[in-house]
Amino acid sequence: MAALGIDELHRFLAASFPQVAGDFRILRLDDAGIAVAMAVADRHLRPGGTVSGPTMFALADVAVYLAILARIGPVALAVTTGASIDFLRKPAPGKDLRAEARLLKLGRTLAVGDVLVFSDGSPGPVARAALTYSIPPGTVRPSAP
Amino acid sequence: MAALGIDELHRFLAASFPQVAGDFRILRLDDAGIAVAMAVADRHLRPGGTVSGPTMFALADVAVYLAILARIGPVALAVTTGASIDFLRKPAPGKDLRAEARLLKLGRTLAVGDVLVFSDGSPGPVARAALTYSIPPGTVRPSAP
Amino acid sequence: MAALGIDELHRFLAASFPQVAGDFRILRLDDAGIAVAMAVADRHLRPGGTVSGPTMFALADVAVYLAILARIGPVALAVTTGASIDFLRKPAPGKDLRAEARLLKLGRTLAVGDVLVFSDGSPGPVARAALTYSIPPGTVRPSAP
Amino acid sequence: MAALGIDELHRFLAASFPQVAGDFRILRLDDAGIAVAMAVADRHLRPGGTVSGPTMFALADVAVYLAILARIGPVALAVTTGASIDFLRKPAPGKDLRAEARLLKLGRTLAVGDVLVFSDGSPGPVARAALTYSIPPGTVRPSAP
Repeated sequence: MAALGIDELHRFLAASFPQVAGDFRILRLDDAGIAVAMAVADRHLRPGGTVSGPTMFALADVAVYLAILARIGPVALAVTTGASIDFLRKPAPGKDLRAEARLLKLGRTLAVGDVLVFSDGSPGPVARAALTYSIPPGTVRPSAP
Repeated sequence: MAALGIDELHRFLAASFPQVAGDFRILRLDDAGIAVAMAVADRHLRPGGTVSGPTMFALADVAVYLAILARIGPVALAVTTGASIDFLRKPAPGKDLRAEARLLKLGRTLAVGDVLVFSDGSPGPVARAALTYSIPPGTVRPSAP
Repeated sequence: MAALGIDELHRFLAASFPQVAGDFRILRLDDAGIAVAMAVADRHLRPGGTVSGPTMFALADVAVYLAILARIGPVALAVTTGASIDFLRKPAPGKDLRAEARLLKLGRTLAVGDVLVFSDGSPGPVARAALTYSIPPGTVRPSAP
Repeated sequence: MAALGIDELHRFLAASFPQVAGDFRILRLDDAGIAVAMAVADRHLRPGGTVSGPTMFALADVAVYLAILARIGPVALAVTTGASIDFLRKPAPGKDLRAEARLLKLGRTLAVGDVLVFSDGSPGPVARAALTYSIPPGTVRPSAP
């Protein structure tokens, strides 16, 4: 049961993270998870035209964060407490990125999600990541799965 | 294209890891990945009947390892070089564990897989993990995806 | 300021984790952290005499766990929620392991520590790990650093 | 034995990563590791004045990368293959960051380092991270420790 839809998440992102909101666009949101596209700009690149590691990390972080907010609503102040990421392949130069994230746990104080990052036009993932968020007490009702 | 089937992997496990092979049983092996069951014994438990973290780590490690061997064959000496794991829920006491692993990358020198661990009878995963293995040079042919 | 000393930690380990307590011995406990030795037995080995990954994971987990209990006392039910580990070198066959752990954060709901694992007689670490524990609310007083 | 000193590393950074080189300054380089300062700018901030997670990730990544280059020289094309990071405390608003990194392993094909990130004026670390890099074969001589 979603607390926020795609349009509401886009508005929340624009209001709360104006510096980066323009980089991200939600493509899909359903019970299986969320898909988020990232427009790759010059500032995200490294020599040779590849996308930087921190850029892929930022996309993975945003994707899982939005998957959590879609469930608990915009009032919650969720904070990233930990992350692991593996860089699997070089993203194709000049191609946008797409993250496919799913929520694995939404507990009373911790939420965990994982994500695969794809480079447009390439079949295999360019990165995988898992992220943990601290949820303010009282945000998630006991009935949440 | 598998290099080894379920029976061959069971034989390899019994021959190479006699101390732990009896704990594990491959349930499924296909292009999507591998499912491995673990019989939980007293030595795997912690106070309250829950399964220990190192036990879930061992299952995740074996599952991805077997997914790699299924592709590159038993001659390869793959070694775990890194891992991340999140413990999501308490496994149910007295229930066996099941790992669902998939191979995300099989490169010339590194292989990466991720895995969800389930406790029999509970819907959500009890753990997630990602593991990286070093592959001896010359093992994976250039044509491997 | 320690809540528990080495003798009390040994007694807690023996009472709460009788299955594994005999494997571990605290060598040092001070403001900088804790050093824990692990007696390597046959059941911890892999072909070639090397120590298994789950064994090194278990040692790292225990070392940080004890570093937390030394600060918050034995009443607390701290649970490992996440971990990352890198295996750096092959442990020497027939040698015991030693973990050097330090507490990086002791918050109201989360504690984080990291650890280096050494193999007796070898200079470089054989593994590094970082572990996160969930702390029951009300355990850590606001004045804790 | 260092292959590159601080001035050479600064020149390498400016030539190879012109988009971000101005953010970083090496404070110290010795056998124990490297200290790298990051000037925090508006684009690195999140609501409330705190530094973004990807910014701390970028600093940790650069610090370990430079610790590796200091040992193997600028010819090597080291690539980040994996990372784990824990965010421990909120960085102080308006304060620069400092990373203290050390090299834990410099192997023939993999290098691993870990790092603590500090916020100027606060005693405890604001983040910890460990990063793995793939080293091109033939770069590290067998005699390297």
